[in-house]
Amino acid sequence: MAVAAAVSEEAWLAALLEVESALAACQADAGLVPVQAAAAIAAVCEHPERFDLAALGEQAAAAANPVEPLVRALSARVPEEAAQFVHWGATSQDVLDTAMMLVSRRALDLVLDDLQRLADACAILADRHRSTLMAGRTLLQHALPITFGLKAAGWLTGALAGWQQLSAIRTHRLAVQFGGAAGTLASQGDRGLQVLDRLARRLDLAEPVLPWHAERSRVAELGAALAVAAGAAGKVALDVALLTQTEVREVAEVAPGPSSAMPHKQNPVAAIEIDAAARGVQAQTAVLLAAMRAEHERAAGAWQAEWTALSEAFRLAGGAVGRAAQMVGRLEVDEARMRGNLDLSGGLVMSESVTMALAPALGRTRARELVQTAIRRASTGGSTFANELARDPEVAKHLGQEALTAALDPARYLGSTQAFIDRTLTEYRREFPSPLRGGNLSDLSRRGGR
Amino acid sequence: MAVAAAVSEEAWLAALLEVESALAACQADAGLVPVQAAAAIAAVCEHPERFDLAALGEQAAAAANPVEPLVRALSARVPEEAAQFVHWGATSQDVLDTAMMLVSRRALDLVLDDLQRLADACAILADRHRSTLMAGRTLLQHALPITFGLKAAGWLTGALAGWQQLSAIRTHRLAVQFGGAAGTLASQGDRGLQVLDRLARRLDLAEPVLPWHAERSRVAELGAALAVAAGAAGKVALDVALLTQTEVREVAEVAPGPSSAMPHKQNPVAAIEIDAAARGVQAQTAVLLAAMRAEHERAAGAWQAEWTALSEAFRLAGGAVGRAAQMVGRLEVDEARMRGNLDLSGGLVMSESVTMALAPALGRTRARELVQTAIRRASTGGSTFANELARDPEVAKHLGQEALTAALDPARYLGSTQAFIDRTLTEYRREFPSPLRGGNLSDLSRRGGR
Amino acid sequence: MAVAAAVSEEAWLAALLEVESALAACQADAGLVPVQAAAAIAAVCEHPERFDLAALGEQAAAAANPVEPLVRALSARVPEEAAQFVHWGATSQDVLDTAMMLVSRRALDLVLDDLQRLADACAILADRHRSTLMAGRTLLQHALPITFGLKAAGWLTGALAGWQQLSAIRTHRLAVQFGGAAGTLASQGDRGLQVLDRLARRLDLAEPVLPWHAERSRVAELGAALAVAAGAAGKVALDVALLTQTEVREVAEVAPGPSSAMPHKQNPVAAIEIDAAARGVQAQTAVLLAAMRAEHERAAGAWQAEWTALSEAFRLAGGAVGRAAQMVGRLEVDEARMRGNLDLSGGLVMSESVTMALAPALGRTRARELVQTAIRRASTGGSTFANELARDPEVAKHLGQEALTAALDPARYLGSTQAFIDRTLTEYRREFPSPLRGGNLSDLSRRGGR
Amino acid sequence: MAVAAAVSEEAWLAALLEVESALAACQADAGLVPVQAAAAIAAVCEHPERFDLAALGEQAAAAANPVEPLVRALSARVPEEAAQFVHWGATSQDVLDTAMMLVSRRALDLVLDDLQRLADACAILADRHRSTLMAGRTLLQHALPITFGLKAAGWLTGALAGWQQLSAIRTHRLAVQFGGAAGTLASQGDRGLQVLDRLARRLDLAEPVLPWHAERSRVAELGAALAVAAGAAGKVALDVALLTQTEVREVAEVAPGPSSAMPHKQNPVAAIEIDAAARGVQAQTAVLLAAMRAEHERAAGAWQAEWTALSEAFRLAGGAVGRAAQMVGRLEVDEARMRGNLDLSGGLVMSESVTMALAPALGRTRARELVQTAIRRASTGGSTFANELARDPEVAKHLGQEALTAALDPARYLGSTQAFIDRTLTEYRREFPSPLRGGNLSDLSRRGGR
Repeated sequence: MAVAAAVSEEAWLAALLEVESALAACQADAGLVPVQAAAAIAAVCEHPERFDLAALGEQAAAAANPVEPLVRALSARVPEEAAQFVHWGATSQDVLDTAMMLVSRRALDLVLDDLQRLADACAILADRHRSTLMAGRTLLQHALPITFGLKAAGWLTGALAGWQQLSAIRTHRLAVQFGGAAGTLASQGDRGLQVLDRLARRLDLAEPVLPWHAERSRVAELGAALAVAAGAAGKVALDVALLTQTEVREVAEVAPGPSSAMPHKQNPVAAIEIDAAARGVQAQTAVLLAAMRAEHERAAGAWQAEWTALSEAFRLAGGAVGRAAQMVGRLEVDEARMRGNLDLSGGLVMSESVTMALAPALGRTRARELVQTAIRRASTGGSTFANELARDPEVAKHLGQEALTAALDPARYLGSTQAFIDRTLTEYRREFPSPLRGGNLSDLSRRGGR
Repeated sequence: MAVAAAVSEEAWLAALLEVESALAACQADAGLVPVQAAAAIAAVCEHPERFDLAALGEQAAAAANPVEPLVRALSARVPEEAAQFVHWGATSQDVLDTAMMLVSRRALDLVLDDLQRLADACAILADRHRSTLMAGRTLLQHALPITFGLKAAGWLTGALAGWQQLSAIRTHRLAVQFGGAAGTLASQGDRGLQVLDRLARRLDLAEPVLPWHAERSRVAELGAALAVAAGAAGKVALDVALLTQTEVREVAEVAPGPSSAMPHKQNPVAAIEIDAAARGVQAQTAVLLAAMRAEHERAAGAWQAEWTALSEAFRLAGGAVGRAAQMVGRLEVDEARMRGNLDLSGGLVMSESVTMALAPALGRTRARELVQTAIRRASTGGSTFANELARDPEVAKHLGQEALTAALDPARYLGSTQAFIDRTLTEYRREFPSPLRGGNLSDLSRRGGR
Repeated sequence: MAVAAAVSEEAWLAALLEVESALAACQADAGLVPVQAAAAIAAVCEHPERFDLAALGEQAAAAANPVEPLVRALSARVPEEAAQFVHWGATSQDVLDTAMMLVSRRALDLVLDDLQRLADACAILADRHRSTLMAGRTLLQHALPITFGLKAAGWLTGALAGWQQLSAIRTHRLAVQFGGAAGTLASQGDRGLQVLDRLARRLDLAEPVLPWHAERSRVAELGAALAVAAGAAGKVALDVALLTQTEVREVAEVAPGPSSAMPHKQNPVAAIEIDAAARGVQAQTAVLLAAMRAEHERAAGAWQAEWTALSEAFRLAGGAVGRAAQMVGRLEVDEARMRGNLDLSGGLVMSESVTMALAPALGRTRARELVQTAIRRASTGGSTFANELARDPEVAKHLGQEALTAALDPARYLGSTQAFIDRTLTEYRREFPSPLRGGNLSDLSRRGGR
Repeated sequence: MAVAAAVSEEAWLAALLEVESALAACQADAGLVPVQAAAAIAAVCEHPERFDLAALGEQAAAAANPVEPLVRALSARVPEEAAQFVHWGATSQDVLDTAMMLVSRRALDLVLDDLQRLADACAILADRHRSTLMAGRTLLQHALPITFGLKAAGWLTGALAGWQQLSAIRTHRLAVQFGGAAGTLASQGDRGLQVLDRLARRLDLAEPVLPWHAERSRVAELGAALAVAAGAAGKVALDVALLTQTEVREVAEVAPGPSSAMPHKQNPVAAIEIDAAARGVQAQTAVLLAAMRAEHERAAGAWQAEWTALSEAFRLAGGAVGRAAQMVGRLEVDEARMRGNLDLSGGLVMSESVTMALAPALGRTRARELVQTAIRRASTGGSTFANELARDPEVAKHLGQEALTAALDPARYLGSTQAFIDRTLTEYRREFPSPLRGGNLSDLSRRGGR
C-alpha cells in the first residue's frame, strides 16, 4: 500500500540521507563546508540502497537513535577529506526531525489524495442519490426520512474536514528542524540562520522562528489530524457495516469477504478493516500527544517514541482512508430496500410530519396527543398508523384524506435536503476545482471509478 | 477557577436555555412561531437559576439526554399558548450541540486569555534572561551552553502554537447545529435555511454547510487542540520541576508547597498540578477522538460521552494553562546557580566548541580525537578538561592560550541565540499587538505580574 | 447513585480522617503516642461533616495535596496537647494512599454487588431462553442459529470475569501504605513495622512487604480491572442497542427514552448511557497506567493525577455496571421477532447445516458447491434456498425430504448450546452459592427483579 | 530480540497451522475426521516455511482475516481426499483466537523470564547496597536518607507484581477458543464438547466454559498486564535516567550512548529506549480494552484490531523488560556521589530527624519551630543547618552535642530499611526458589551477569 511504503524503513533512510545531503549543500553555499565535500556527500546519499538497514537498526537500538550510526556509516563511505564535513555541527535530532517532516510530507500527499478520492466518491453518491429515500436513524432507531444522498453528503463533510486540516498542516506546520546540539546553532558560527534559511528552502519546508526540538506541537497536531481523518473514514465504515446487516441490507460492498465456514455470508470486509485501522491510529495519537511532555532541550523517551508512533499512525490512517475511498467508490446501493425499510414501521417514521401538519390548527400539544393515540392503537391493534389516523375524527376534521396522505409521504417531508446537498457539493467543488478533477458530476462519475 | 465555572452544570443549563430562546426568536423572525410566544419563552430562559438542576440531572440520566427533560420543564413554566412553540421542530441534539459550542466559546476565551498570559510571562523571561547562561540539557545530560532566555523563548513558542490553533478553532469551527430530528430540517417547512442562518448570526457562531450531528470533527479537533495547549503548559511545568530539583535549584516557584512531614521541603506544587492536569486532558481527548465513530444520524453512546469529556478537558486545560501563566510570571531565577551548574562538568560542556575551533586546522576527525583524549585524561586524572587541553602540544600549536580560553567560554559559544529570541519575540508581538498589552517589554513586565 | 457517593469528596474526607484516627490509635498501641491523644484525635476524626470541604479543596490545590491542609485543620480542632501527635511521623502520601484503598474497597463492594446483580439477571435470561431461537450474528451478518439463552450466557461470562478479577484485587491488592517521608519509617524509630502491621489489621487492608509510594501497580491493576468490568457491561449494552434497532426489534428496554421531537421513538437509553460510561472508564485507565512512571520516592504529577482518575473510573464503572444489571433484569424479549428475523434469509442461515449434512456422502467440497449453487439460484430467481435445494437432483439423492427438512431446521442445529449454558450456570452458581441468592433458578427470578 | 520473534508473522503462521493440525487430530480422535486425513493435514502444517507469507498477507487484507486464505492455501497442499477435512466445522475466529493464545504463551514465557532476570538484578542491588546511603527524593526534592538497596527493593516489588499478574494470566486465562461459526459447535454434531476438551489438552490451554469469541476480557486483561509489566520497567528507567543527570551522576549505564555532536556526552540510552517502549505498550492496551465492545457473536472491527495491537504490546513490553533487566544487571553505582549528594543540603535532609529527636521533650510543635528557625538562619546567613542548631540554646538544652550529631547522621535515621529489604528479598526467593536460580545471593550475582 502506498502510504505504508512512504513511511517504511527504506523511506526513512532515504529521507535521513536527503537531509544530510541538503545540509552539506547548504553549508557549502554558506562557506562552512567545501563544495567538493558537499558533492561527495551528496553522491553517497543518493544511494540509500547501499546502506545495510538491518545493521543500522541494531545499532540504532544501542544508540537510542538511528542517526548516530548512520552518520558513521555515511562517513565511512565518503572520501576521507569529505568525511570530516558529514553532519557538520548538526545533532541527531536535527536530521531525524527534518527527515520526519519529509517522510510526513510524502505520506501526507498520499493521504490527502486518498481523502480527495473519498470526497469524490461521496460527492458522486450525494448527487446521484439526492432523492433516494431512506430512513434517517438516530440512536439506531428510525427517526425521519432522509435521502441516501444526504447521508453521503454528511460523509463528504467529514472527508473535507479531514482534508482541510491536514492540508493546513502540510502547508504551515511541516518545518525544518535545525538547532545544533542544544538549539543555539553555535556550531555554525555566524552562519547559523543562513544555513537554516537555505535548508528550509532547499527541502521546501517551513522555517520555524525557533528550533522545535522540545516544542512538539507540530507532531502532536499532525497525529491528531490523522486521527480525525481516519475517524472520518471510520464513520463511513460504521454506517456501511450497519447498512449491510442482514436485517437492513441497503448497501453492499462490491467485494464482500468470504467466510471460511458459511457459504452464504457476505462480510463487509472493507468496513471492518477501516474500523480496525482507525482504532489503531487513535492509539498512536495518544503517544504523540503525551510526547509534548519533553525534558529540557531533548526528551529522554518521549521523542524516541514519536518515530514509530507517527509512522504507524500514517500507515493506518492511509489504510483507512484509501480503503474507504475504494469502498465508497464501488458501493452497491439497493434503493428498493431503502424504501422498503423506511416503510417498515407502517408510517410511524412520519409521526413528526403528521404532528407538524396538525399543529397549526390544533396546537402542538393536542396534535401530539392525537398522534400518540394513533401510535398506541396501531401498536396494540392489528391496524396501521395511517389507518388509525384516518379513522380518528379529530384528525380527519383538520387533515383531509389528501392532506393526510401528503403528511404521510416521506418524499414530501425532506425539508432542506436538496439545498443541504447542494451546499456541500459547492464546498466540495471549491476545494477541488482543478480541471483534472472536473467541475461537473459527470466527470465525477469517471473519477469515482478509479 | 474561571474555566471550571464556564463549563459547570450551571453554565451548561444557561447555554441550553439561551439556545431555546434564540431558536424561538429566529423562528418568530421567520414566521414559524408567534412573536409573543418567542418573547414568553425568552423571558423564562433568562432565568436558568429558577430551574432545578438536580432534578434535571436525574431525569437526564433516565432520558440519556438533558434536553428532553429541560424542554418539559421549560414548557411547564411558559404560558400554555406559548408552550406549544418551545423547541419548535428541533431535536435534542440541535440544542445540546449548539449549547456545547456556546459553552466552548466562553471557556475558550478564558483559555486563550490564559495562554496569552502564559505567553506574556514567557516573553518577559525570554527578554530579561536573553544572556543568562545555563546548561542546555539533552537526554537529561549537559550538552552545550544556552541562555535561560532561549529556554523561555521555547516555552513561548509552545504557548503561541496552542494559542494559534485554539484561536483558529474559535473562529472557524464553532458552528451552530440545527438539523431537526434527522438533519433535514423538515419540521421547518421551507424556512429551514432561513432559521439556520438567523440562528448562526444571533448566536455569533459559524453556519455549517450541513448539520454536523454525526460528523464530529469539530469536537475532536477542539479536544485535540486543548490537549496541545495543555501539553505546552505541561512542557513548561516539567522543565520547572526538573530545574527545582535539590541538585539543580536553578529556579523556584514563588509559593512552593509545604510538606506535612519535612520542614525543609520546597515542593514545586504548581508544576505538579499542571502536570497532573495535562495528563487528564489527554485522556478526555481520547474519548473525543473515538467519538467520531458515530452511528448513522446520531451516535448511541459516543455522542453522550462527549459532553462530560469536553467539559473535563476544558476544566483541566484551563487549570493547566492558567496555573502555568501564574507560575512562570512569578518564577524565581537563580542566575548564579545556573552559571555554577554550567561549570559543573569542568568545561566538558564546551567540548563541541573546542572541536569546532580545532577543526579548521586539523580536520574534525583529528580535532575530535584530541578533545576525547583530553576528556579521558581529565576524567581519570585529577585535572580539568581545560588543563588537559592546554597541556596537549598539538592543541596548543593550533589554539593559543587566548583562543583556547575563548573556545572554553560559554558566553562566546551561543551561536544564533539572540537572533532566535528576537524572532520569537517578534512573532509574539505580531500575535498580541494590542495597545492594552503593550508593544514593549516594560509593559510586559507589568502584565506578567497579574 | 451509590458508587458515585462512595467516591465523593465527602467519602474521601471521611476516609482520610479514618486513616489519621487509625494511625494515632495504632501508634498509641505501639507506645509512640499517648492513649489520650489518640482518643482525642479519634473523637474529631469521627466528624468529617465538621470540616469545610470547600476550603480544604482550595488549600489542596495550593499544596498539590489535600492531606497537608487537612492535617492543619485537624490539628486545630484537637486539644493542643494531642495536636502534637496528629499525623505522627506520617507523610501525606501515607494517608492519601491508604484512604484511597478504603474508598476503593467501599466502591468495589458496590461494583461487585452490581456485577453480581448483572450476573443474576443474565443467568435468569440464559436459563429462561435456553431454547429461544435467534440468529447468531458475526461481523453483523446472520451466521447460524443460536438461542437467546446462549447469548445471555455469553454476557454472564463477561460479568463473571469482571467479578473474579475485581474480587481478587479486593482481597489481595488493597494494601495499607505507610512508609513515612521516604519509605523507611524512620520517624517511627524501632516501632515502624509494628505500627504498619497494626494499621493493616485495624483497617482490614493487606500489609505490603514494602511501602508502595512509587510502585503503583496496585492502582494500575485496579483501573484496568474497572475498565474490564465496564467493558463487560458495555458489551451487553452494545448487543441490546443493536437488537433494539427498528429493523431488528428483538428486545426492548422496559423504560426506553422519549424523544423531544418524535412521538414514536423508543430510544435504548440505558444501553446508550452504559456505552458512554464505559468509554469514560477507559480514558481514566490510561491515566492510571501511565502513572506507573513515578519519579524516585514520590511522583511529581503522575501520583496527583491518580486521585480523580480513580474516583472517576469508579463512578463511571459503577454507573455502567449498575445500569446494565437493571437493564438486563427488565429486558423485554420478543421471541416471535427473534424467530422471524432468523427466517429472514429464507434458510440461508442453515447453509452450513446443509453442507455438513451432505458432506459425509459427497465430501465437503462437492457439498459446498451444491449449496452455493442453490444460494445463487435463490438469490437470482424468485425461489427460496429450501426450494432450490429440494429441486437439485444431486441433493435429493443424498438427502431425502425429511433429512433436508431436518437440515434446514434451526432447532436441530444448535450443537452444544444446552451444554454450554449449563456449564456457564454451574460456574455462576459456584461463584454465588450463598443461600440468600439461591441455588435454583426460581430464586433467581425473584432476585432479578430487584 | 526474542519476544519480537515470538510475535512475528512467521510465529503467527506457525501457530495458525499448529491449531489447524491439532484440530484435525482431535477430530480424528472423536471420529469426525479420518485418521489419515488428520495425518496428511498435520504433515503439511509442520512446514509453515512452505507458505507464502506475503501472498497470505495480501489476501488477508481482502478477507479482513488471515485464516480464510490460509485454509485455502492449506487445503491446496493437502491431498484432495484429506483437503475436505481441513478446518472441519471451524470458523476463522476459532483458529485465530487459539493461535493468539499459543503465540501469547510463548511470548509470555519470554517476558516472564525477562521479568525474573529483572527481579534477579534488582535483588542483587537491593542486597549489595542495603546500606549505601543516598537521598530519598519526593516530588523531585530531597526528603530523607534512604539506601540505594531500598530503592532497588522498590524496583524489585514492581518486577514481582508484573511477574505475578502475568503468571496468573498464563496459568488461568490462556484458553482455547472453539465454538464454530456462532459459538454453538453445531458443525461438530454431538462431539463438540469432546473435541473442545481434547483440543484444550493437546494444546495445553485452559478450557473455557463457553466459547469467548465475543467476551474479550482475556485479551483485555493480558494487554493491561503487559502495560503494568512494562510500567515496572519504565519506573526503573525513569529513576536511572534521573540519577544519571549531569548534576546527579549517582549511577551510569555500562554502555551509555555516544552523541553525534558532543564527545563528552554519556546518554542513558537503555533508560530512554525502555521509556519509549513502555509508552507504546500503553497505547496498544487502550486498543485492547476498547475491543471488549464487540458486536453480537463476532466484532466487526474491534476483533480485527486486536491482533496487531497484542503483538505490538508484546514486542514493546518484551523490549522494555528485557532491556531493563540488562540495564539494571550492569548498572554502575557511584556510592561516593550518592553520599555527596545526600550532604548537598547541609544537613537539611535531616530536619525531620532533628524534629523527632526534640519532640519528646518539647512537643512536636515547638520542635518544629526550632528546626524551622535553624533552617531559616542557615539559608539566609552563611552558616549550616547543623551549626545553627548547635548554637540554639533551647536545642542545646535538650539535645547534647552527641545526641545532635546522632540526629544529624543519615546512617542512624533509616528506620525499617533493613527489615523492608529483607522482607522483599524473602518474597523474591519465595517466587523464584528453583535451584537453578539459587537460594542465596552469591548465586544471584552470577545470574545478574547474564
